[in-house]
Amino acid sequence: MNLDEKFAYMATGQPYDDVDPKLMKVRETATAVTQKLNGTVDPDKRNELFTQLVGHVGETPFVEPNFRCEFGRNINIGDHFYANYDCVMLDGAPITIGSHVLFGPKVGLYTSNHLFDPVERRTGGCIAKSITIGNDVWLAANVTVLPGVTIGSNVIIGAGSVVTKDIPDNVIAAGNPCRVLRQITETDRTGFNGQDFSAGK
Amino acid sequence: MNLDEKFAYMATGQPYDDVDPKLMKVRETATAVTQKLNGTVDPDKRNELFTQLVGHVGETPFVEPNFRCEFGRNINIGDHFYANYDCVMLDGAPITIGSHVLFGPKVGLYTSNHLFDPVERRTGGCIAKSITIGNDVWLAANVTVLPGVTIGSNVIIGAGSVVTKDIPDNVIAAGNPCRVLRQITETDRTGFNGQDFSAGK
Amino acid sequence: MNLDEKFAYMATGQPYDDVDPKLMKVRETATAVTQKLNGTVDPDKRNELFTQLVGHVGETPFVEPNFRCEFGRNINIGDHFYANYDCVMLDGAPITIGSHVLFGPKVGLYTSNHLFDPVERRTGGCIAKSITIGNDVWLAANVTVLPGVTIGSNVIIGAGSVVTKDIPDNVIAAGNPCRVLRQITETDRTGFNGQDFSAGK
Repeated sequence: MNLDEKFAYMATGQPYDDVDPKLMKVRETATAVTQKLNGTVDPDKRNELFTQLVGHVGETPFVEPNFRCEFGRNINIGDHFYANYDCVMLDGAPITIGSHVLFGPKVGLYTSNHLFDPVERRTGGCIAKSITIGNDVWLAANVTVLPGVTIGSNVIIGAGSVVTKDIPDNVIAAGNPCRVLRQITETDRTGFNGQDFSAGK
Repeated sequence: MNLDEKFAYMATGQPYDDVDPKLMKVRETATAVTQKLNGTVDPDKRNELFTQLVGHVGETPFVEPNFRCEFGRNINIGDHFYANYDCVMLDGAPITIGSHVLFGPKVGLYTSNHLFDPVERRTGGCIAKSITIGNDVWLAANVTVLPGVTIGSNVIIGAGSVVTKDIPDNVIAAGNPCRVLRQITETDRTGFNGQDFSAGK
Repeated sequence: MNLDEKFAYMATGQPYDDVDPKLMKVRETATAVTQKLNGTVDPDKRNELFTQLVGHVGETPFVEPNFRCEFGRNINIGDHFYANYDCVMLDGAPITIGSHVLFGPKVGLYTSNHLFDPVERRTGGCIAKSITIGNDVWLAANVTVLPGVTIGSNVIIGAGSVVTKDIPDNVIAAGNPCRVLRQITETDRTGFNGQDFSAGK
């Protein structure tokens, strides 16, 4: 298998050799690029490095240091993405993120599991499953998303949650494990239209 | 509004424009200062940079790398503060920390929420609420504190807790969400007086 | 007490002076070495620095940035250790890790507690208790392990768990606090033998 075939194979959800030298080399490159990204202060240069690192990202991304990923090429993101400090994405399988998505600090998306049997795990076996996140999603601080999870659109995941199962559209969910707390409704509107109100108005 | 008026407005708890260029500039400066702080090894130079970054900090602070904050100017800390590795403070509203406060690694204090309505969230709206922490508080590793929370004095928050509501004085609290486990009492005294005892004494 | 005596004393589980200048100096060295380690891209040089930092580590360790520890000398690790991004180990008491152990991103092992009484805590008192991890253990992302915990062999700890009590051999455990979910059995075998299967086979 060449590298493209390897990633296609990993995306099937079958156990794969995680210590394959082809993968190790891509990881080493990703670590080097993110080290450079995380040491760069200028926002334009940071965006250039981030865009070069991931498979695809839309308009006006903004990613704070330290951003980490496993490969980068399996990460596909829509427009207006913002990730706060210390975001980690392990992209053995595709990570697909919609537009207008916001991450608080310390968010982690992890597509890969090591094999559960200890003898098989020693051989370097992993299984990867895609993570998909809709549009207009906000993952609050320190949220962890596990392999195979799909999060719908217009979703808020509360701080410190561990998302082990799919989350539908239009809800607030939180906890370890993460559970739906309630729908987002019209009562959540504040009347804010992008402008600060003057005091005394 | 000038910058001081903007921060005063944010402290009222009303929705504010989080992508206001005035704020973006302060954030960019804070990121640059913390990058410098986190790359500096000498403890005295680190303290100088930290003191310059925050609104106020008392005697003998010690902050391990990587410290991160959103603005810095809204952070007010008493004497003898210690924060272990990878502390993050988002200080859209004031963060007030008493004296003799200790943070374990990976502690996060977050005063800001994005708006809950997805359309309003797209416009960059946030609401910030103050976080207040008393004297003689120890937040153990990986504790997350949410907007509006007040933690009393003489409090211990257990590792991995997500503090969503106020915590009174003199208790141990833990969990996600964080709940009071018990009072701290005289039985918690060990007899330690600052000196190691020699073995066999 | 000289430094060796101090560490031996700390390992007894008695309250000790955590701000002892002898300890501060070792911490400062550890922070300087890990800053260098975390800024180094070349894997061989990284391993050299890591091996020099810890008490003992076996064959082929691989530790991603940013690795942090308190002292280093109390960390003893077997062969084929892998720690993903942002691992923190506070090794006031010995941390003993077997062979074929894998850590996901953001794992924290913490052997030290500050004293619970606020007056005693002000004097700098801590109590440390050893952490022991068997062979063939996988701690998933964002796992926190508390002082005194022993984790058996062939164990998987789920992402985001806070391990407050001992975990026996051959189980999957998860949650905050972490609880045993089930045994690992023959049904966890996938047939993987270290080789990717060709598509269409």
